Amino acid sequence: MKLYTYFRSSAAFRIRIALNLKGLAYEPAFVHLAKGEHRAPAYGTVNPQALLPTLDDGGELLTQSLAIIEYLDETRPAVPLLPKDALGRARVRSLSMLIACEIHPVNNLRVLQHLKRVLGQNEEQVNAWYRHWIADGLAKFEADLGKAKAPGKFCHGDAPTLADCCLVPQIFNAQRYQCDTAAYPATMRVFAECMKLDAFDRAQPSRQPDAE
Amino acid sequence: MKLYTYFRSSAAFRIRIALNLKGLAYEPAFVHLAKGEHRAPAYGTVNPQALLPTLDDGGELLTQSLAIIEYLDETRPAVPLLPKDALGRARVRSLSMLIACEIHPVNNLRVLQHLKRVLGQNEEQVNAWYRHWIADGLAKFEADLGKAKAPGKFCHGDAPTLADCCLVPQIFNAQRYQCDTAAYPATMRVFAECMKLDAFDRAQPSRQPDAE
Repeated sequence: MKLYTYFRSSAAFRIRIALNLKGLAYEPAFVHLAKGEHRAPAYGTVNPQALLPTLDDGGELLTQSLAIIEYLDETRPAVPLLPKDALGRARVRSLSMLIACEIHPVNNLRVLQHLKRVLGQNEEQVNAWYRHWIADGLAKFEADLGKAKAPGKFCHGDAPTLADCCLVPQIFNAQRYQCDTAAYPATMRVFAECMKLDAFDRAQPSRQPDAE
Repeated sequence: MKLYTYFRSSAAFRIRIALNLKGLAYEPAFVHLAKGEHRAPAYGTVNPQALLPTLDDGGELLTQSLAIIEYLDETRPAVPLLPKDALGRARVRSLSMLIACEIHPVNNLRVLQHLKRVLGQNEEQVNAWYRHWIADGLAKFEADLGKAKAPGKFCHGDAPTLADCCLVPQIFNAQRYQCDTAAYPATMRVFAECMKLDAFDRAQPSRQPDAE
């Protein structure tokens, strides 16, 4: 398998974790997001959405990180990343989407660039935007974790799931932007638990060959 | 089943379509997003994420629209909304998430309100923001549809899927903000095909009891 990735892409980070958790080897292909390499025509033939990541599984090109992880879970079911019961799966997907649909998109690189270039926001204002949506989203995440019927070590139960693959990159972003995470103790406990695992540790941005 | 809904919520609109396609009856519970009723403590006990929609299935509270539709598809598999093959499912999920993770969140009500209240953007500037992200996202969607190995009447094949449940509300938003959709002919052909079906038509904002 070949993974089109960028060290700082949160969505690629999710896939790196999932592949590591499942013990699946992959060859990385680096696409420099900050330099706009994802918008180059050559990459458009790989991913018509012009986004990272893309997973090339024997010539089949898979896009959108959560769709890729669901695909991996269906085709490589050893070390499952979704629970067996429909309610558990719904909960894991909901926590994942709280990050992937509510927090991450609003702080995406292209949104930050638009704030700067089109709306004329300065760095401090862009950072305030970033922290506002992290705080808004993590408060919701913390509230949701607090409603768990059977709280475990991870987001759902005592093994990592898709939700943990989403949470960890989001917390890395929060820390990079010096967001205060003291108000989210349950969330940060799960984050700390994840980071004890080699699969999460090895996937982090600074450990990637293309890290700057 | 009880659906917590608001006529203009795109995410609730997705669920209304899915329930109609599956022929599942539901009782609506109206939560007025524009008045902020989703942030009231009473609703917080229903949905700790304080977002719409929530589906109450015999006391089990399901959140996040895509997670809810996956749950409905697993528990009520008649009239499937995801293909049977893993690659097909990955493609449908990817198209769905292109809308749910890339387009919709950036134009969410709370983001528009933040642009107005905190960044001091006027109505014209907010509308420009809205149209910018619609154009950016629908161009990607059109490019992706164009890469279909087996193009059909709908987003994927000849029956509606999760991707169509996501596309139609997004096009309603585009039209409401007078976005030019001429550059997306394949996308608009699918939209027109969907709107021929009663399940989509009945789910639209103006047909809801709480429509204003």
